[in-house]
Amino acid sequence: MTKGPHSTNKLLSIQSHVIHGYVGNRAATFPLQMRGWDVDCLNTVQFSNHPAYGSFKGTKFGPETLKEFYRGLKDIGINYDAVLTGYVPSDEALSVVFDMCKDLASHGVKWILDPVLGDNGKIYVSQGNVDLGVKVTDLESFKNAIDTFNELYNVENLIVTSVQLSNDSTSLYSAGSTRILQGVFKSFYFKVQTIPAQFSGSGDLFSGLLTSAIYKYNEKYGSSVNINTQLEKLPLAYALNEVLSIVEKVLTLTYEHELNKYTSRSQPVPSCLKINDLKLIQARHYYTQELRNFTVHSF
Amino acid sequence: MTKGPHSTNKLLSIQSHVIHGYVGNRAATFPLQMRGWDVDCLNTVQFSNHPAYGSFKGTKFGPETLKEFYRGLKDIGINYDAVLTGYVPSDEALSVVFDMCKDLASHGVKWILDPVLGDNGKIYVSQGNVDLGVKVTDLESFKNAIDTFNELYNVENLIVTSVQLSNDSTSLYSAGSTRILQGVFKSFYFKVQTIPAQFSGSGDLFSGLLTSAIYKYNEKYGSSVNINTQLEKLPLAYALNEVLSIVEKVLTLTYEHELNKYTSRSQPVPSCLKINDLKLIQARHYYTQELRNFTVHSF
Repeated sequence: MTKGPHSTNKLLSIQSHVIHGYVGNRAATFPLQMRGWDVDCLNTVQFSNHPAYGSFKGTKFGPETLKEFYRGLKDIGINYDAVLTGYVPSDEALSVVFDMCKDLASHGVKWILDPVLGDNGKIYVSQGNVDLGVKVTDLESFKNAIDTFNELYNVENLIVTSVQLSNDSTSLYSAGSTRILQGVFKSFYFKVQTIPAQFSGSGDLFSGLLTSAIYKYNEKYGSSVNINTQLEKLPLAYALNEVLSIVEKVLTLTYEHELNKYTSRSQPVPSCLKINDLKLIQARHYYTQELRNFTVHSF
Repeated sequence: MTKGPHSTNKLLSIQSHVIHGYVGNRAATFPLQMRGWDVDCLNTVQFSNHPAYGSFKGTKFGPETLKEFYRGLKDIGINYDAVLTGYVPSDEALSVVFDMCKDLASHGVKWILDPVLGDNGKIYVSQGNVDLGVKVTDLESFKNAIDTFNELYNVENLIVTSVQLSNDSTSLYSAGSTRILQGVFKSFYFKVQTIPAQFSGSGDLFSGLLTSAIYKYNEKYGSSVNINTQLEKLPLAYALNEVLSIVEKVLTLTYEHELNKYTSRSQPVPSCLKINDLKLIQARHYYTQELRNFTVHSF
């Protein structure tokens, strides 16, 4: 599966498009392209900017139009390695996107599904869709939630991007779980310092980078994984470590840039900063770096 | 005008979007992002792929929707350094895009206008729109055409991306003309070897790169230009040289990749190869190189 210097991995990324700013496809695409991926962007919407700005204009593509786009791609016979889906703006669109991804998956295409359940304590989908019956408050209940999910859904790789535990307000916990054999999973977590701000687009950047990192480390180490493989040698652990490290760099650079706006005007910094635009372009040198700055922990 | 390490130039690029392939905004954006530009993409269409494939699906945004996008951007007060326009898919859309660009230009935003008159001997617009009354067959008539254009339209910088002259079928001629003083222009040309293939998207890659190259060399050398400046020291000559050099590298890499498909199957190579997709991602290391491989000629 190792590719020559002139071959690329091919991704179909089905997400929103904003003219200005970096969320959805706009957050995922550029970093992946820098990492050598051909990213085909099927935009589900075109908005002037993301809604957190307070105002925006634009339009969503209807389910029939979304189907047409996919038919057009099938007609010219494009092959993909992976399909990435994020937030989809309506139930009808979701059902069309689900059908596309099932079709692709039936042809061996890996599906990286970011369910975008919520952000910062706000849930975007109806409560019944996300309830595992486990309330995550500490590491033990976090582990229980992962085990319950694995029992119910049995996916190959699971990532929980970030949760805050009740006894630790200065850290975020990010976990991964890999299926080693049928019914046997290995789970691990990383602990990351919080940055006191809310960033639009960080989750979409995360899932984009994760797509390429999972491929990269599966190609490198996937074949040697067995029941005795140490946690830190799991491809998913390498991948999550790399993605967390890059995302932390991008957010820190963005945060410092934002802070600088206040300090240069001698204005007080708000206690919870909301940052509309990632400094995705200024941070471009990070996307191709081999960063793994965090320590793998076992539960 | 020199920018700090964490500031970027800001471009609004108003062009087509294809899900697969690299034409319009898809050809212009990534190279510009690698060169440190924040590129806001106002997509005029979303097609599955470009029409040269023989089939495609998709939709154009109507004039009212295009207006809405722009209104959304104005509402949140985004500022641009430049606006880039390429092929616009209908007369109504063209009139809306023209109004946007006039509005931006009235606020000091530079407009890089690629009229996309035609490709490979085929004209996309009605003949009356492109007729300067000069038939370009040799260097003398080429120079006459540029002089006539300057007299009629008096723009600051003019680029003729490529013409083939009747006595030289193995070269393309690319020319530039800069206004030094009111009514005084300096014109020059480069001679580039043809590659025996037709590439979709090469013109859009060209105009994207040109946007950043013009900015780069105007910032570096623009203030020192006067009536005595040698042709090779004109910012536009530096810029065109750099763009031609990068585009040549991208097309050569793309061409070799395509040739390889035939030779690896021991198939004969068609005499005029039509190449649908630039190897835009594989060629990514060229976009940030300081390449100036051509010699400036005076007419």
